[in-house]
Amino acid sequence: MQDPLDRTLRAEVTRRKERYRRCLEESVLPFWLRHSVDRENGGYFCCLERDGTVFDTDKFMWLQGRGVWMLSKLYTSYRTEPAWRDYARAGVEFMKAHGRNPDGDWYFALDRTGRPLVEAYNIFSDCFAAAGMAEYSRAAGDEEARQIAVSTYRRIQERKTNPKGRFTKQIAANRPIKAMAFPMIQVWLAREMGDLVEPGVREAYLREAIDQVTKLHIDRGRKAVYERVYADGGHPDCMEGRLLTPGHALEVLWFILRAVESWPVDAHDSRYADRGAIIDLGTEAMLWTAEKGWDTAFGGLFYYLDADGRPPEKLEWDMKLWWVHAEALCAFLLAYKLTGRAVFWEWFRRIDDYVWARFDDPADGEWFGYLHRAGDPSTTQKGGKWKGCFHIPRALLTCIRFFEEIEAAHDGGRA
Amino acid sequence: MQDPLDRTLRAEVTRRKERYRRCLEESVLPFWLRHSVDRENGGYFCCLERDGTVFDTDKFMWLQGRGVWMLSKLYTSYRTEPAWRDYARAGVEFMKAHGRNPDGDWYFALDRTGRPLVEAYNIFSDCFAAAGMAEYSRAAGDEEARQIAVSTYRRIQERKTNPKGRFTKQIAANRPIKAMAFPMIQVWLAREMGDLVEPGVREAYLREAIDQVTKLHIDRGRKAVYERVYADGGHPDCMEGRLLTPGHALEVLWFILRAVESWPVDAHDSRYADRGAIIDLGTEAMLWTAEKGWDTAFGGLFYYLDADGRPPEKLEWDMKLWWVHAEALCAFLLAYKLTGRAVFWEWFRRIDDYVWARFDDPADGEWFGYLHRAGDPSTTQKGGKWKGCFHIPRALLTCIRFFEEIEAAHDGGRA
Repeated sequence: MQDPLDRTLRAEVTRRKERYRRCLEESVLPFWLRHSVDRENGGYFCCLERDGTVFDTDKFMWLQGRGVWMLSKLYTSYRTEPAWRDYARAGVEFMKAHGRNPDGDWYFALDRTGRPLVEAYNIFSDCFAAAGMAEYSRAAGDEEARQIAVSTYRRIQERKTNPKGRFTKQIAANRPIKAMAFPMIQVWLAREMGDLVEPGVREAYLREAIDQVTKLHIDRGRKAVYERVYADGGHPDCMEGRLLTPGHALEVLWFILRAVESWPVDAHDSRYADRGAIIDLGTEAMLWTAEKGWDTAFGGLFYYLDADGRPPEKLEWDMKLWWVHAEALCAFLLAYKLTGRAVFWEWFRRIDDYVWARFDDPADGEWFGYLHRAGDPSTTQKGGKWKGCFHIPRALLTCIRFFEEIEAAHDGGRA
Repeated sequence: MQDPLDRTLRAEVTRRKERYRRCLEESVLPFWLRHSVDRENGGYFCCLERDGTVFDTDKFMWLQGRGVWMLSKLYTSYRTEPAWRDYARAGVEFMKAHGRNPDGDWYFALDRTGRPLVEAYNIFSDCFAAAGMAEYSRAAGDEEARQIAVSTYRRIQERKTNPKGRFTKQIAANRPIKAMAFPMIQVWLAREMGDLVEPGVREAYLREAIDQVTKLHIDRGRKAVYERVYADGGHPDCMEGRLLTPGHALEVLWFILRAVESWPVDAHDSRYADRGAIIDLGTEAMLWTAEKGWDTAFGGLFYYLDADGRPPEKLEWDMKLWWVHAEALCAFLLAYKLTGRAVFWEWFRRIDDYVWARFDDPADGEWFGYLHRAGDPSTTQKGGKWKGCFHIPRALLTCIRFFEEIEAAHDGGRA
C-alpha cells in the first residue's frame, strides 16, 4: 500500500523520529514532571511560566484529566517508567477526592486544595476525566479508576444531547446547529475507553460521531470542514456558521483516520468500502484545510478563519497556537503513512520545520504556546488554563508511532 | 480653578475640537446611518465590514440599546436632527417588539427578524436598554419607552446581586470576588436615568457604586485599579485577581469624576470633602493606569495586563482596541479640565495623536476596531458583536463638551 521509501527518505524519517523522541524524553516530560505536580495537595499546577514557575495555582479539570491520561498512556504504551505512573497517580488521587459534584459530573475548576470554583458546566471535563481514569486503570490496575471511567462515560452519553444543561444560553429552537467539538472527542474517547465498554456500544457511538463529521461537517462542494452546521449539513450565514478552525479540523480528521485504519481490509466486512472512502475523503479534507489555513505571509496555521473570507469573530484569529500545529503534525504524518502521497510528506515537513523554529524552547524545555501571527511569542508561558501536559507529548508519542509504522512498512516492503 | 490657558493652547483646543466635530458629523454618524439600519425588520445590523457591507445579520442587544441611546443623546444634547431620532426609533420599535423575555429581561441576541438566539443571561443588555429607552423617551416624548426604562432599571437593581441567575458558573462561596464592570455601568446609568428615578434612590445607587470602585478596586498602595477584588479590597493571587484592564479603569474613572464634578462646591454640603478627595484620587489613578498601560515599544494602550507582570490570561492582551482609546480620550481631557495639570493634557495629546494615526479611517468612515500590537488592523471590520454605534461617537460628543467647557473656563477667566 505504501510507495516504497527511497533510502534518503528512510533516513530522514529515522532522523526526524529521533528528534521527537529526544524532545519528548529530554525536554517536554522533564518540564512537566519537575514543575507541575503539587506535592502538598496532589493534582497538577497548569499555569507555568517559561521556566516552570507557577503563576496561578487553580486546578483546571480538563488539564488534570489530560495529564493523568498522558502519563498513563506513556506508561502503558511507551515505557513502564515508575515516575510516569506516580505522576498520573498524583492527578488521579486529587480527582477522586475533589473532582466531582454530587451528581458525579466533573467540575471545571478547583482551587489548589480542591474546593470547587467553577461548576460542572463543561462536558469536556468529563471526557478527559474518563480517558484519564481509563488509561490509569490499565497502568496501575486500579479498579476504582476503572469504575469511575465507566460511570463517567455513561454520564457523558446521557448528557450529550444537552451537555450544558441549565447553563445553556443558546436558544437551539431558533437556530438548531450541530457543533464538531463533541463528535471529535467522541471518536477519540471511544478508542480510549477500549475494552472498558461493550464493543457494540462503543462502535455505535464511534460510528455516529464519524458519520456526523463526514456527512455534515465536511463539505465536499465548498472544500472545507465547518465547525458548526445545520442538521442537514447546511450553513447558517452568520459568523458561527462560517467558522473554520484548522486545528480542530486536522485533529478530528486524524482521529477518524486512525479509527477506520483499524477496520478490516476485507471485502466481506461491512465497513470495507467505507474504510477506503473515509480515508480518501479525510485525507482530501486535510489538504483543503492546510491550503486555506496556512499563512503564506508568515508561515504557520491560523487559529480561526471565516469560510467566506469575512472578518473572523475571534480577536486571536491569526495567532499561531501550539495545539493546532501539534495536531497538524499527527494529521499529515498519518495521511502520508496511509497514502504514500508526497504532498502529505511535504505538508508534514513544512509544519515540522515551523514547529522547531518557532514553538520549541530548548533553553527551558517544552514549547511556547501562543505566538503572534509573525511567529514571535505573545507570552512566554508554557502552561495555562488550556495548555498542560497533553497536546505536545501526545503529538510526539503519536508521531513516533507513525514514524515506526512507516519504517516497518518500508523495511517490510524491502524484505 | 483652571490654570489659565495661554493663547497657543487655547487655539489648539479649538483646532482639536473642530476635528472631533468633523469626525462625528462627517465620518462616524454617516457610516452608521447609511449602513446599520435594517429597513425591512427594524433594529440595527452591527457586523459591518470596512465599507459598511453587512457580514452577519444577527442583532446583539447590547448594541441595539447603545445605538438607541447614542442617537437619542445626540438629538437631545447636540442638535435636533430628525434623521437621528428616526435612527433611534428604528432600534426602539424593534426592541419593544422582540427584545424581552417573558420576565421582562433582555435577550442577549436575536436574529434579524427578532427571534431570540441567546438567553437573557447578561445584565448589561438590560443596562444599555434602560439607558437607550430613557434617552429616547426624552428625544421623542415616548411614554412607553419611559416606562420600559423605569421597569428595566428596577429589574437591574433586583438582579444585581445575582445577575446571571441560573447561568452562574462561578462558585462564589469559595472565592467571593467583586467585579468592577457592574459598578462602572451603575455610575453611568444613574446619571442617564436622571429624572426618571427618584433622586434619593438614584443617588444611593450612584454612591454605592462609587464607593465600591474608590474603596475596593482602586488600590493606593499598589497604584493600580483592579478588575476583581475581595470584599475587603484584598487580591486573590490568581489570574483573575491580578487582572488589569486599562480601558475599563479609565472609563470608570471618568464616569465617576463626571458624576462628582456636579456635586456642590459648598463646604456645607456633606459631599464637599468627598468631591475633592475623589477628584484627586481618580485623576491620580488615571496616571497610574496610563503609565502601566501604555505600550512604550509601539504606542497605544494594552487591552489587558497582569498587575504583577505575570503572563496575561487573555490571548488578545496586547492588542489595541478602539473603545479603550475612546475612553482614554474622555478620561484625560476631563482630568485636564478638572485639574489644569499639564501631565493630563500631554496624555490626552499622546492618545489623540495615536488615535488619528491608527484607528481613524477617512477613506470609508468610522474607526477600525482591532489593531495588532504594532498598530496595524487585525481585521478591517467597523462593527461586530461588541462594536457598534457607541464608544466612538460617545467619546467624540463627550470630548466636544469637555473642549467647550475648557474654552468657556478660559474665556471666562480672561473676561
